[in-house]
Amino acid sequence: MLGGNLTGGTTVSASQSPAQTGTQQSIRLDPWLDRYADRTAGLSASEVRALFAVASRPEVVSLAGGMPFVSALPQEMLQDAARIATTTRRGEALQYGSGQGIPYFREQICEIMSLEGIHAHPDDVVVTTGSQQAVDLVSQIFLNPGDVVLAEGPSYVGSLGIFRSYQAETVHVPMDDDGLIPQALRETIARLEAAGRPIKFLYTIPDFHNPAGVTMTMERRREVLDICHRHHILVLEDNPYGLLWFDRVPPEAIRSLDSEGVIYLGSFSKIFAPGFRIGYVLAPHAIREKIVLANESAVLSPTTFGQIMISEYLDHNDWRGQIDTFRGLYRDRRDAMINALDEQLPTLPKTHPNGGFYVWLGLPEGFDSKEMLPLAVHELVAYTPGTAFYADGTGQDHIRLSFCYPTPEEIGVGIQRLAKVIHREQDLLDTFGTSPRPAVDTQHAVSTPPPDTL
Amino acid sequence: MLGGNLTGGTTVSASQSPAQTGTQQSIRLDPWLDRYADRTAGLSASEVRALFAVASRPEVVSLAGGMPFVSALPQEMLQDAARIATTTRRGEALQYGSGQGIPYFREQICEIMSLEGIHAHPDDVVVTTGSQQAVDLVSQIFLNPGDVVLAEGPSYVGSLGIFRSYQAETVHVPMDDDGLIPQALRETIARLEAAGRPIKFLYTIPDFHNPAGVTMTMERRREVLDICHRHHILVLEDNPYGLLWFDRVPPEAIRSLDSEGVIYLGSFSKIFAPGFRIGYVLAPHAIREKIVLANESAVLSPTTFGQIMISEYLDHNDWRGQIDTFRGLYRDRRDAMINALDEQLPTLPKTHPNGGFYVWLGLPEGFDSKEMLPLAVHELVAYTPGTAFYADGTGQDHIRLSFCYPTPEEIGVGIQRLAKVIHREQDLLDTFGTSPRPAVDTQHAVSTPPPDTL
Repeated sequence: MLGGNLTGGTTVSASQSPAQTGTQQSIRLDPWLDRYADRTAGLSASEVRALFAVASRPEVVSLAGGMPFVSALPQEMLQDAARIATTTRRGEALQYGSGQGIPYFREQICEIMSLEGIHAHPDDVVVTTGSQQAVDLVSQIFLNPGDVVLAEGPSYVGSLGIFRSYQAETVHVPMDDDGLIPQALRETIARLEAAGRPIKFLYTIPDFHNPAGVTMTMERRREVLDICHRHHILVLEDNPYGLLWFDRVPPEAIRSLDSEGVIYLGSFSKIFAPGFRIGYVLAPHAIREKIVLANESAVLSPTTFGQIMISEYLDHNDWRGQIDTFRGLYRDRRDAMINALDEQLPTLPKTHPNGGFYVWLGLPEGFDSKEMLPLAVHELVAYTPGTAFYADGTGQDHIRLSFCYPTPEEIGVGIQRLAKVIHREQDLLDTFGTSPRPAVDTQHAVSTPPPDTL
Repeated sequence: MLGGNLTGGTTVSASQSPAQTGTQQSIRLDPWLDRYADRTAGLSASEVRALFAVASRPEVVSLAGGMPFVSALPQEMLQDAARIATTTRRGEALQYGSGQGIPYFREQICEIMSLEGIHAHPDDVVVTTGSQQAVDLVSQIFLNPGDVVLAEGPSYVGSLGIFRSYQAETVHVPMDDDGLIPQALRETIARLEAAGRPIKFLYTIPDFHNPAGVTMTMERRREVLDICHRHHILVLEDNPYGLLWFDRVPPEAIRSLDSEGVIYLGSFSKIFAPGFRIGYVLAPHAIREKIVLANESAVLSPTTFGQIMISEYLDHNDWRGQIDTFRGLYRDRRDAMINALDEQLPTLPKTHPNGGFYVWLGLPEGFDSKEMLPLAVHELVAYTPGTAFYADGTGQDHIRLSFCYPTPEEIGVGIQRLAKVIHREQDLLDTFGTSPRPAVDTQHAVSTPPPDTL
């Protein structure tokens, strides 16, 4: 019943040193091994986890993490909010709250969503513990073991882990520079329906995709929605980066086109700060009711203190101006990364993100992104291997590069180091015809990475 | 596949008015009804939910909620912590954190647990989004559909809802004034084992039980642990109230007796404030690793801002003295409630809690606690019907009375009103032989109540 990854006690946690990881068997036997649920077999730590622990050392330029640059948030903006949360609104901020979230805060969330063309009622919004938890709650409500979730290939590693934890199968649909390819979606659905597989929803990140960096065109949004309607497939639209555009405003949200067939997820982690763990979900009425109940069962209520902090921040500060600040900051970093890649690795295919945090870089033929990671860390640069973003063990030929956290200068240094690693690999491949390292274990390819790589 | 409670769209959410609730069919059809997971049938709103919305009006004395009296927490204590979280520790407080929680904060948690006789290493602690989420994560890791969880009868309504959401069956084990009855535990296990049922863990609240108010003796803690060892049953010890004792220190935690067979859950909701949603779990090593992974999958990381607020509060304030303040406050309220019950309802059996938030009151023969609730609310007093605390539809003969939130004076008024309702009910019963109201639907007896009734 249990997967091989559990039987040997070889799961690895963030607090273990690299020496404890790898394929060695733990000497500690787990007396409760026969008691775990079947779904627990899907819980396994990434083998790259220990490497990332090393990569967090200050001398390493990490292009791996998805950490927003929170230092750009002025201290004064927080202090006013904290003062109110600890004085006039203290009684409310310290207490349990509604499982759905504070009503006035949900009105403010509707105002933010209106910037993306969404007209919603606060009654249909549920505040969650980050939008990660929103993906978890929706999955809990919809996914039986063996169900299918459609997702772009590649897709967000954290969501792939959630789908797996509910013993669902993620089937990827290819993308190009305009996002998910509608014809590929049609073909995938036809194939799965012919096989009698239950497709529960399409999980999509239409704006500045994580990890691909591309944006779905409005024409495709309409087409994708139309296909899903015809096949009675719900759309789960995950949009943490939508307001962080660089050169031009992205198309309006898929949810702006349809209120009954789309569940929309948003987050304050990227436009404010992740430390409060506040996200939200906008769902059709009946589904929203179930999300509230599932939320109460999971955590009773989202943090009232955190909700009030953000609510007061929104009320008393120029939050639109602050998003402009973030946009300018991340635009400069995107430029630094694209320029460095153009200079250092001009022949490799890459995406050109118009917003968000990520560039998706193709590697030369014969490369393996996961095998190359230890060499990169040795050269003091880190990235996330493409394998993390596929549920099917593929992705060896790509890496995700994040430009959100390091400065433009650090990005330049990081890409230089990366180029050195790639050139050396290329020399080895040219000499030996193949990389002289052991084959990669793709079985654990989508295992849960540490949070700061997401 | 789906339960009847979903097919008619009659689930009720907190934001609906009482007029929308009850048995009437919703006119809105849910187009996604055929897509929900099997487990979603276990998600249903309590029929008493709308009544509790009424009960939150200021003229009603609510003896129903489990809300701590957070106003007793001095404002200055919070302001120092907030100042640090928004200035010197701002970079950390705003960012994503470890899925296990901040290491220094976990050391502080070990210090708190040492007050209950627990000697633990911070590596074995995981910070969670309230201890509710800890119950959810442990359940996710261990429970397959059809598994059995043993729990005291009655037991905490929020945990019963979680076990049900994982499609597990809760089997109750009777208690008396000394807590769980070991002989009853033996017999229950023997019966279940004979039937081939897989028992995954014993869920117990040994100190100042919610809702029963009783405390398990040390002798019984040893005996219960011994029984569980013999049958290879894990113990899940939930202890949110342990430090809030009134007359004498309770026995040390079950976890103090055994580190390999007990998962221990603690919370800052009652000794500090629930608004930050910070709880913790201490688990044997292998289980702890899986809890971290499940936590990361569910929410990425617990709120860093909230952890730092509490960590700084602990470092810079006399938190032990503050717990003494809470103890005195709740002791006075316990006294007020016991005195009022002695005076107003002297013949009814009740527990005499030595700590915590709750008194468990027996009703006269023939009474039904759920049927009586609307009458009580009409008389401007609210309680939680005993049915909420059983997974098997029983509990009609008891109610839970909370003394944590109302003042001693309000408690006196509330019990006076309750006595009036009970005396009138008794008159009706004496006259008609039975209560002239329709029979109660016990099918939804353990449905999820709103968070503030927990």
